[in-house]
Amino acid sequence: MPNFQSILEAIHQEAIHAKDKGVVASYIPELAHINPEHFGMHLKTLDGQSYGVGDYNVPFSIQSISKVLALSKAMALVGESIWERVDVEPSGHPFNQLALLEIENGIPRNPLINSGAIVIADILLSNLEHPKEDFLNYIKAITNDDTIRYNESVAFSEKVTGFKNYAAANLLKSFNNLNNRVDDVLDFYFHQCSIEMTCSQLSEAFFFLANKGNCLKNIAQLSETQAKRINAIMLTCGFYDEAGEFAFEVGLPGKSGVGGGIVALLPDQFVITTCSPGLNKKGNSQLGMLALEQFTTKTKRSIF
Amino acid sequence: MPNFQSILEAIHQEAIHAKDKGVVASYIPELAHINPEHFGMHLKTLDGQSYGVGDYNVPFSIQSISKVLALSKAMALVGESIWERVDVEPSGHPFNQLALLEIENGIPRNPLINSGAIVIADILLSNLEHPKEDFLNYIKAITNDDTIRYNESVAFSEKVTGFKNYAAANLLKSFNNLNNRVDDVLDFYFHQCSIEMTCSQLSEAFFFLANKGNCLKNIAQLSETQAKRINAIMLTCGFYDEAGEFAFEVGLPGKSGVGGGIVALLPDQFVITTCSPGLNKKGNSQLGMLALEQFTTKTKRSIF
Amino acid sequence: MPNFQSILEAIHQEAIHAKDKGVVASYIPELAHINPEHFGMHLKTLDGQSYGVGDYNVPFSIQSISKVLALSKAMALVGESIWERVDVEPSGHPFNQLALLEIENGIPRNPLINSGAIVIADILLSNLEHPKEDFLNYIKAITNDDTIRYNESVAFSEKVTGFKNYAAANLLKSFNNLNNRVDDVLDFYFHQCSIEMTCSQLSEAFFFLANKGNCLKNIAQLSETQAKRINAIMLTCGFYDEAGEFAFEVGLPGKSGVGGGIVALLPDQFVITTCSPGLNKKGNSQLGMLALEQFTTKTKRSIF
Amino acid sequence: MPNFQSILEAIHQEAIHAKDKGVVASYIPELAHINPEHFGMHLKTLDGQSYGVGDYNVPFSIQSISKVLALSKAMALVGESIWERVDVEPSGHPFNQLALLEIENGIPRNPLINSGAIVIADILLSNLEHPKEDFLNYIKAITNDDTIRYNESVAFSEKVTGFKNYAAANLLKSFNNLNNRVDDVLDFYFHQCSIEMTCSQLSEAFFFLANKGNCLKNIAQLSETQAKRINAIMLTCGFYDEAGEFAFEVGLPGKSGVGGGIVALLPDQFVITTCSPGLNKKGNSQLGMLALEQFTTKTKRSIF
Repeated sequence: MPNFQSILEAIHQEAIHAKDKGVVASYIPELAHINPEHFGMHLKTLDGQSYGVGDYNVPFSIQSISKVLALSKAMALVGESIWERVDVEPSGHPFNQLALLEIENGIPRNPLINSGAIVIADILLSNLEHPKEDFLNYIKAITNDDTIRYNESVAFSEKVTGFKNYAAANLLKSFNNLNNRVDDVLDFYFHQCSIEMTCSQLSEAFFFLANKGNCLKNIAQLSETQAKRINAIMLTCGFYDEAGEFAFEVGLPGKSGVGGGIVALLPDQFVITTCSPGLNKKGNSQLGMLALEQFTTKTKRSIF
Repeated sequence: MPNFQSILEAIHQEAIHAKDKGVVASYIPELAHINPEHFGMHLKTLDGQSYGVGDYNVPFSIQSISKVLALSKAMALVGESIWERVDVEPSGHPFNQLALLEIENGIPRNPLINSGAIVIADILLSNLEHPKEDFLNYIKAITNDDTIRYNESVAFSEKVTGFKNYAAANLLKSFNNLNNRVDDVLDFYFHQCSIEMTCSQLSEAFFFLANKGNCLKNIAQLSETQAKRINAIMLTCGFYDEAGEFAFEVGLPGKSGVGGGIVALLPDQFVITTCSPGLNKKGNSQLGMLALEQFTTKTKRSIF
Repeated sequence: MPNFQSILEAIHQEAIHAKDKGVVASYIPELAHINPEHFGMHLKTLDGQSYGVGDYNVPFSIQSISKVLALSKAMALVGESIWERVDVEPSGHPFNQLALLEIENGIPRNPLINSGAIVIADILLSNLEHPKEDFLNYIKAITNDDTIRYNESVAFSEKVTGFKNYAAANLLKSFNNLNNRVDDVLDFYFHQCSIEMTCSQLSEAFFFLANKGNCLKNIAQLSETQAKRINAIMLTCGFYDEAGEFAFEVGLPGKSGVGGGIVALLPDQFVITTCSPGLNKKGNSQLGMLALEQFTTKTKRSIF
Repeated sequence: MPNFQSILEAIHQEAIHAKDKGVVASYIPELAHINPEHFGMHLKTLDGQSYGVGDYNVPFSIQSISKVLALSKAMALVGESIWERVDVEPSGHPFNQLALLEIENGIPRNPLINSGAIVIADILLSNLEHPKEDFLNYIKAITNDDTIRYNESVAFSEKVTGFKNYAAANLLKSFNNLNNRVDDVLDFYFHQCSIEMTCSQLSEAFFFLANKGNCLKNIAQLSETQAKRINAIMLTCGFYDEAGEFAFEVGLPGKSGVGGGIVALLPDQFVITTCSPGLNKKGNSQLGMLALEQFTTKTKRSIF
């Protein structure tokens, strides 16, 4: 068993002295104010241990990381019928997100690109009685933490500037792949992305995906097969146009968010979360990617 | 001088007996009720003669034909600065309209595809004091006809079903190529497209483009160079993915609309308008295309 | 009647003093040696007059201009059956030439992009007894000039560096849209492009397209309809991704070549040819485009 | 420990009674003669056991499966410098293979699509003294079997019909991403693909990738990290446009070939190979995909 705490501390030291810390995203105005020096890392093993360094208890905007939790809730609610409305293939080049939707008749390539996540939001909206409240309660329950909140000003900031998401949602609607009104779906979607969590909360929320579908309190959230499938989708599609690179360098299923967070996991062993807001050219956390690469190199743990 | 009236009558006879009259567009619900047997054709020569056959005095929805009139008004208002926001190149394959916008950083390929026409609508909205009223007055003035109207129920029908146009407008907005609110621009745009005119009114409205910029009442609407440029754009971009085919078979600058209308013109000689609501696979009037091809073949008149 | 000679001389003076003369193409090594100061312009009117300035009697490599002559020969040989193998639509964005071939099942968008011209070369190869000799004789005949030659070293230079053309030809072959061997088709094609002509020879060669299909010696090379159709294709497709711009600024059917030549014509009135080897960003002669724009502005002659 | 032999036998029974066995590829004429009833499956565990059912000792054309072995040899020869010439990202939609090459300046998306494998073939050609002989000897050595052969008539069949590969190679050459002559690279590539092996030979050849880089005879062929990286690439890119689906349904790194073979592996545990020549719509073995899905379901073994 490696000494996880000292490995995390070594990575932390290297990270805070890194010269290139990436660039904080500015396209969501409310997120542009994040402290670029923020760095946290948290590890939760399935045998119950936790390890943290840096700002691992400071909340940040989880953004696209929420897509995995929304997907898991949708699978729990409606099962495999999801796959009639969204595919499971990597999306290839980022320039062509809307192009692919046009060619492929409104079926998004996978549930972790924006258009796919908007379809998932539409499914949740149709299948939850009080969508925003129920979804937040789901997160609170799997994290075992009642303090988690939407950030209304971040949600509002996306609502008034998220024109590409409006474009994608309207294109989906034109292909009859949204059942609810565009504004309602995006209101839910922007709230979902605005959730704020800490590294340690995220490690706990994703615990069930490393644990055959069973959450921290050992309640089945998904079947073992469903959990495996979400892990497979994270591996092939979790990092935009850098999914192959992440599989190649890190070798774990994971998901990044534009707020600077990354969650990754090794089935049956651990969940690990990093946060550092500076992004690389492909939109993933610069230091988070490096930290996870070092972690799997130093611990020799990966799915490959 | 050919006997224009007898040529039009021969074409009319052939058209009403044609087996394949195309398919009436159904994507704008309000337009799906058009009588598929409607056929009209009207010719206005620059020496002042008019010739008509069939339903040439029955109003129909001009739809995309309005884009040429909107473009001409925008050129009159702001001149060549238009070309900073929209290009003048044919768009190629129809599947990739939004794709090209993504690649080309939100600059539509030309002002006659939907995304380009939405930019033009944005320009009119910014530069007319009472946009809807002023634009309609412009059409009335160049047509010399005070009876022309918006069709509010067609405009509303597009407003509640035109998701692809909302997608395009939001994508333009995300590239900072719309100055007004998406909803306001599209409200204007859907009204513009809903205008109803007859074949003879359209021949009169487009008279100035065949007449060096001077309308029926001999008032300069555009400079001679501007009129030529609009004609050039109609020739290369006026028929979606069938622009080359129309240039090849008919050989006149022109513009079609999904309501079944086509206006074409030979500079210094005439304007000719057809209406027949059945569309071919590329979205242009089936019988209108055939009628114009026969007209230029029988009269040996084309720009080539 | 404008004083054509003095107009040409004014344009010539402006051209030789232009600061930005574009950049000589270097991708065909043998062409990289051209004198960048070379500038010629020649006008041939249908009433039999000729006007020339600068280097209008100096031969240069006609390159893609040859595609129009090859197309006209193919139309003369096999008529409208050409259009089963090549379309007549503008190609849109240059990046996607091979992409469009892939999507559109090996049918090139038009006969003036490389893939389309390679299909035309294949047709000539199948329908001429001695292809290279016969095609050159055709050019000599319509130009009424026996001195025109292939430049073997330019043809060889393309043969050993023209990998994109080999890629296009093999892709066509994979879709069964080449009947002859790739190497044979490209050998013919590279020779066709290597032909050297002067501005005045080109004005004479293209005379028949302005003259209802009848060449200088009044022999019918094509029907009037066929000549019109080739003019339509030149207008919509003759300038790569700048076809719309050329129609907009110049307003004449025409064709450019990477050797720096441009031929344009006004049906029933004249043919005009320029040569200046510096190219603009879209691959068309920088000064040639400007010279023709000035010519149509000063003479107020265009098809629009 | 599951009873592997009885699991394989149950899968075999189901496979031979399957109604839809897919369609044998016909684009390589020499491969069209395969017996569509051929079905074999072979499992090799890292503890030294072997299990086989059906035609697991009948040789078949490994085709694209060879790309993984070529990649591993290239990594052994030149290390990480490979990644200057080829990327590691999934390719997305199949229609756009050449399109992506055009956009991405001749850098193939990954080494397992044809264009990437052609670059790898070029690297082997430059770095092996006797390329064809040396590469075959490498396969023989890692398989510990001297009987493996190229099938010259299959290689020749591809040479005279593989126009899409010629198109890709010429496009790479145009971007200076091939150092050797196109014909030489493709001659090597077609030979590499023509190798014939049995299921059991393939399980043995791929043993080193499941065994931290060490082959059956415990000789290091690659470092542990390099082996992991190849596994990561197989997972994200090994099944054309069905990579996500295979990760989702099967959950193992693997590679398919158009000859009907699939090799997959679970690091530290086993290699499994299937062959059945009927292909599904995405070009992967219909029964092979089903058999592997059942195997991982029944044994609950996957990387996720």
